[in-house]
Amino acid sequence: MEYEEPLFFRVMEYAAHADGDIVDMVSGNPDWGSPPAVAEGLHEYADTGGREFQYPPSEGLRELREEIAARRQVDESQVIVTNGGGEANYLAMGRALERNAGDEVVMTDPVYPYYPGKTTMLGGTQRFVETAADGSLDPEDVREAASEDTACILVNTPNNPTGAVYGEDAMREFVAIAEENDAILVSDEVYDHFDFSGEFASALQFDSPNRIVTNSFSKSLAITGFRVGYCIADEEHADPMKSRHMLTNVASSRPAQAAVLHALRETDADYYRESRELLRERVETFTAALDDAGAEYTTPDGAFYVMARFPDFPGTLENTYELIDEAGVAGMPGAGFGSARDDWLRFALVTPRVEEAADRLADYFA
Amino acid sequence: MEYEEPLFFRVMEYAAHADGDIVDMVSGNPDWGSPPAVAEGLHEYADTGGREFQYPPSEGLRELREEIAARRQVDESQVIVTNGGGEANYLAMGRALERNAGDEVVMTDPVYPYYPGKTTMLGGTQRFVETAADGSLDPEDVREAASEDTACILVNTPNNPTGAVYGEDAMREFVAIAEENDAILVSDEVYDHFDFSGEFASALQFDSPNRIVTNSFSKSLAITGFRVGYCIADEEHADPMKSRHMLTNVASSRPAQAAVLHALRETDADYYRESRELLRERVETFTAALDDAGAEYTTPDGAFYVMARFPDFPGTLENTYELIDEAGVAGMPGAGFGSARDDWLRFALVTPRVEEAADRLADYFA
Repeated sequence: MEYEEPLFFRVMEYAAHADGDIVDMVSGNPDWGSPPAVAEGLHEYADTGGREFQYPPSEGLRELREEIAARRQVDESQVIVTNGGGEANYLAMGRALERNAGDEVVMTDPVYPYYPGKTTMLGGTQRFVETAADGSLDPEDVREAASEDTACILVNTPNNPTGAVYGEDAMREFVAIAEENDAILVSDEVYDHFDFSGEFASALQFDSPNRIVTNSFSKSLAITGFRVGYCIADEEHADPMKSRHMLTNVASSRPAQAAVLHALRETDADYYRESRELLRERVETFTAALDDAGAEYTTPDGAFYVMARFPDFPGTLENTYELIDEAGVAGMPGAGFGSARDDWLRFALVTPRVEEAADRLADYFA
Repeated sequence: MEYEEPLFFRVMEYAAHADGDIVDMVSGNPDWGSPPAVAEGLHEYADTGGREFQYPPSEGLRELREEIAARRQVDESQVIVTNGGGEANYLAMGRALERNAGDEVVMTDPVYPYYPGKTTMLGGTQRFVETAADGSLDPEDVREAASEDTACILVNTPNNPTGAVYGEDAMREFVAIAEENDAILVSDEVYDHFDFSGEFASALQFDSPNRIVTNSFSKSLAITGFRVGYCIADEEHADPMKSRHMLTNVASSRPAQAAVLHALRETDADYYRESRELLRERVETFTAALDDAGAEYTTPDGAFYVMARFPDFPGTLENTYELIDEAGVAGMPGAGFGSARDDWLRFALVTPRVEEAADRLADYFA
């Protein structure tokens, strides 16, 4: 199966084996720490055993589904707890492609690299829509790309890698375009807690059988390794998605579900606000240094990535390696995210050394 | 998507809401408790945090893969840690069906109910081979069913639901038949620690690019809710299976992987032996009572189920409900496992009250 993700691993591998001190801005692994209730929840669960160590309901622990349903103001029957956002998108895209309502998945370029690979695995084909320079996605461009061949329109807001946040008007239009084309809008909202603009609008705001929302706790609770995510869909989609979930994974891992349930109950809004403020500061620090380095960039409205282009220094894999060796900063080549930004680099702001990295880049390009 | 598993849930639901005291012999959830090292491992992991809470390698924690590889005497690169045996079978069957080498999956009747559903989900078709009355599977019957349309031959040993254990000669033949037909033998060996016959032979004994072995720790460590399993395959299959794993789940849940790693290292052979001996005793107790009840049954050579047929009492869903209400014993109707045993009932020996259940059945049919 063709799949582009290994580029991430090649770069991480290279950075890990490089000489000298490297600031790692490759992965999307939060460095700011989980709320204490995650570990507490795991300890509590570890003390149970017996029946509590056996299969949870396939669609997720009832109390966790109830907690999610209450927060998202949907019925609990619409919630499926998944093995992270990855499985949530797999279930949603699988549902869109199994309806015999087209085999194309409309997605942006630049694109989160799992989306094209999942599309191929599920028997679909990709149709790319280019975003504006600031990462925004014009609904009219999506409307033009959509047709009776469209099974799925796949958006990610706040966006990895561009940092764009699609506002309420755009989201309403994406839902409408899905309805017009008998397609499913899959809205991947895993960075919803990292909106700096105040403009984020969940697709859940628009009641429609043509939209499925995916999310996870990987980023919001800084637990990418736990693999707890969820889908929200109307019953006509949720039922077959539950079957696919059962036939693929039986259920998601229960210790992680128990820890997330406890963390959701015991973590107050300060934790989320502080993580977001920390990232906002890192964005300011980093983009200021990019100015000093004469780089072109977009200030992200959300998520935790910055894409940048340095003068006469296209973001190839070779140049990525050169920055690791010569500047001591590891980013991701833009080619990892489709063709539209293949001369850019993506930097993940998941290190306390953002300022150090920024200084190094400014020095290197001075 | 069509799928037969809900029958399990209907029976469990019925038993849970029935009046009076019911002995639950429906599920496959071990009741004998996990080794203490499982909880210890979870506690240890909970005390880490930070980077340890982030993505493990997609194919599984390196030390866990090394531990599995050492135990199974294969190269670590052949091991993929999965979200339980369910995902392991999904990956293996997906690989067999994506090779453009046929679209049929040969499987037994009676059959573990997930297999037909997974086959349909993955775009394949089922071809059933009937087993003998004792659950044994004649390789010549498999050879006759196999053809150039065969993508996969799927066996489960020790077997759920029949309790059959396929010996070395049969397993050698299954591998050979896969080779003869350019197919993949998928050998699901999740009950390998529960062989009472001494005749169990893993497909790993036969070195061939045409066999993939799946397994899990759900039963052997009594942690069906943790979802930690694995596949072992030659590189030509392991690589695309790793891609499918990444595109479906990104990785398996890390807390559960860490707990299993610790448990494998710290649990001695006594734990496994004692669980097996406990089950062997339960088999004796239960089958003795079946004799008293005038039932036909097969004494299982492995796993932890007994299939039985009572005189003038076919194992329909209605009769299953009647046994719950009138005898206070909940089993599974044979129709849940294909057509060959649809007048039988399956009883899971996962309750300390096997003797009580046996007495109740003997009384009821006296």
